[in-house]
Amino acid sequence: MPPTPARVTAVDTYDIRFPTSRELDGSDAMNPDPDYSAAYVVLRTDADADGGPEGHGFVFTIGRGNDVQVAAIDALRAQVTGRSVDALCADPGALYRDLTGDSQLRWLGPEKGVMHMAIGAVVNAVWDLAAQRAGKPLWRLLADADPEWLVHQTDFRYLTDALTPGEALELLRRGRDGAGERTARLLERGYPAYTTSPGWLGYGDDKLARLAARAVADGFTQIKLKVGADLADDVRRCRVARSVVGPGVRIAVDANQRWDVAEAIRWVRALAEFQPYWIEEPTSPDDVLGHAAIREAVAPVRVATGEHVQNRVVFKQLLQAGALDVLQIDAARVGGVNENLAILLLAAKFGVPVCPHAGGVGLCELVQHLAMFDYVALSGTTEDRVVEYVDHLHEHFTDPVVVRDGHYTAPTAPGFSATMRPESVAEYTYPGGTFWAADAETRRGHAV
Amino acid sequence: MPPTPARVTAVDTYDIRFPTSRELDGSDAMNPDPDYSAAYVVLRTDADADGGPEGHGFVFTIGRGNDVQVAAIDALRAQVTGRSVDALCADPGALYRDLTGDSQLRWLGPEKGVMHMAIGAVVNAVWDLAAQRAGKPLWRLLADADPEWLVHQTDFRYLTDALTPGEALELLRRGRDGAGERTARLLERGYPAYTTSPGWLGYGDDKLARLAARAVADGFTQIKLKVGADLADDVRRCRVARSVVGPGVRIAVDANQRWDVAEAIRWVRALAEFQPYWIEEPTSPDDVLGHAAIREAVAPVRVATGEHVQNRVVFKQLLQAGALDVLQIDAARVGGVNENLAILLLAAKFGVPVCPHAGGVGLCELVQHLAMFDYVALSGTTEDRVVEYVDHLHEHFTDPVVVRDGHYTAPTAPGFSATMRPESVAEYTYPGGTFWAADAETRRGHAV
Repeated sequence: MPPTPARVTAVDTYDIRFPTSRELDGSDAMNPDPDYSAAYVVLRTDADADGGPEGHGFVFTIGRGNDVQVAAIDALRAQVTGRSVDALCADPGALYRDLTGDSQLRWLGPEKGVMHMAIGAVVNAVWDLAAQRAGKPLWRLLADADPEWLVHQTDFRYLTDALTPGEALELLRRGRDGAGERTARLLERGYPAYTTSPGWLGYGDDKLARLAARAVADGFTQIKLKVGADLADDVRRCRVARSVVGPGVRIAVDANQRWDVAEAIRWVRALAEFQPYWIEEPTSPDDVLGHAAIREAVAPVRVATGEHVQNRVVFKQLLQAGALDVLQIDAARVGGVNENLAILLLAAKFGVPVCPHAGGVGLCELVQHLAMFDYVALSGTTEDRVVEYVDHLHEHFTDPVVVRDGHYTAPTAPGFSATMRPESVAEYTYPGGTFWAADAETRRGHAV
Repeated sequence: MPPTPARVTAVDTYDIRFPTSRELDGSDAMNPDPDYSAAYVVLRTDADADGGPEGHGFVFTIGRGNDVQVAAIDALRAQVTGRSVDALCADPGALYRDLTGDSQLRWLGPEKGVMHMAIGAVVNAVWDLAAQRAGKPLWRLLADADPEWLVHQTDFRYLTDALTPGEALELLRRGRDGAGERTARLLERGYPAYTTSPGWLGYGDDKLARLAARAVADGFTQIKLKVGADLADDVRRCRVARSVVGPGVRIAVDANQRWDVAEAIRWVRALAEFQPYWIEEPTSPDDVLGHAAIREAVAPVRVATGEHVQNRVVFKQLLQAGALDVLQIDAARVGGVNENLAILLLAAKFGVPVCPHAGGVGLCELVQHLAMFDYVALSGTTEDRVVEYVDHLHEHFTDPVVVRDGHYTAPTAPGFSATMRPESVAEYTYPGGTFWAADAETRRGHAV
């Protein structure tokens, strides 16, 4: 009797929260006290008993509301449970289309916010499962894939005035030229990174100077500073950073959506003497025309955005409007790999470099795969391309990123690097995990 | 001893679902089987015992995921409970700013989707409470309010490149001229409505013809048809409708986001012979530039959108880009009255008429107040302005809309008309209400 084909038997969700606000890690002009968190999902299958892989995905949040994000993933459970694992892995796009096309759930976006990120987490978990079953890291599964299949996996809805499937196929076919050499180079050298670790707004000047110097010593050629709370502080911090790193290291600045358009222009011009390489999120991520106006006014400072851009339709317009110099995909904000394929193809079509957003919980682990696919099989270059790196919370993943000499080392383990360590899940599940239970106990003690 | 000032003692939420999919009410090209639902919130206060009012608000959804929307409202509970009722009602904008400015919750949007709509429901509940305590219907509370106070209530963040507080104040001051006469006229005549009841996609031609004829007999001068699933069907349905209503009644068509840009242009041109008055939601609500391209190509057919526009920043751009002829606010999609004030002011600044989206559950009840405020104290006219009307589910509200001779009668009861009947809540709460419990019982019977 042939074995029964494997099916998804459970969609398990976890509310994981890390108490990062206590150290001001991750503090910026809009987010003074984030508790880095993940709404984590595990797809279990009836091949698990035979040691078959599970699929892992997550949404990154910064604390309160992580439970709402978990509830949104839970709302997808009925549409995933019972599906054939073979069918899911052969065509993750079918699930993507079913979930984004569910008319009742679509009303809650459409294609944005909590519900869309939940879909992204589940879709990414399927890609994790597919890559594990293929025995490849995800970047390699994508880079090795047939261009026609990749086009089939890509969401072109609402994009065809800017990018057609035929154009995408052409870009992917061209991207295959020299892919073998680039793979070898990637495995040898890695993918360039930049670091945000020195620049959190809550850090004092001494800590900033020390960490900036260490970043240069560690081989980084770009660092990033948070700005936007107080101009005099920003001027001082930029001066400190520039004096430490010298003229040859790029300093990006990041306002985390703090400004209206005119204020953004004034503020960036006031920092121009320190040669910021890019200004990131100068205003609302929804404001395509605002970004275009800012870009025109602050050149040669580049404009970067993307970590909060809700979907491919807004990226399309940012490119159509000439609003961006640097496109920052995020692995867990949009509808998963299928939508990020569309965004990478848009960037390639418009010739805009992709410098992914990372940090948080596990965003480095995920997004490195997309950048490496982009290099090997689409853009074909790492020129002016860097993946953000933040040295936090990697110890909670079973296949953490390895950054050496300012480069992400290419992952070789099969999958999407999305698996959290069981000990971390047990400790930081909110509110019942061992850390939070003990914390509540301590607070009760203080309250007595 | 003076009485203790009243505080919010509870934020109660309810998952209310109506089984509308069984009659194909509400069916369109993107939403074939909606179960009209409400994530309903009641703010209770310790003045309740003395007969003091409660505040009511809700998010409209179409079924699955209504529980996620409820979870999002629940996530706001801690920030509302315990607040002074006097302070809330004197300055609803303070709560709006606190909730939209909560950095951890903001990450889940920002200002879009599930979390933003949850904020809108709670903010609207405060306005309901404020209007009840003032003894006025909300439209009148707003129309009577001091322009400086209204400016203070308005969210200008990310708008100042298009609308400054000073300009808004000027518009509101000018809007006061003749407000008394307009109030009298509104109370006598009501506000113009149009009806979507004839045009649901799931209705046959006979039902369409019958309902269209009835609409004209009932005094409506505009009807709306759903389009976008099949062009031949749409041509036939438009022909039927035009032949029934004659040349003098406006026929709007609504594609509910079905098309990419080029397809929208082709399809609308193919319907041009029936003189559609506007094409509504031709493509993604996120696609500002797409709407602008469509508008240029399909003139003189007007372009309308807004029911799914996530926030004021996207409305700003739709106006800046000249993408809209008709702006369709929705009372429950954005962050409540405070954000809709900004959107109404933007429309006034750009001279674009506001024709609110309604229907669903209770959207007519809410949005009539905003349109009437707009008429009395801002736009000053009802020319080319109509509020959508759908004759469904009004019986579940304690102060349902009254539409007579094609006009919404101005509400006179204090509040925002947002209170659902307790019997309806008991019957349609999902899954435990009497209707759904009996339904589950019946299904179990069939399954045996």
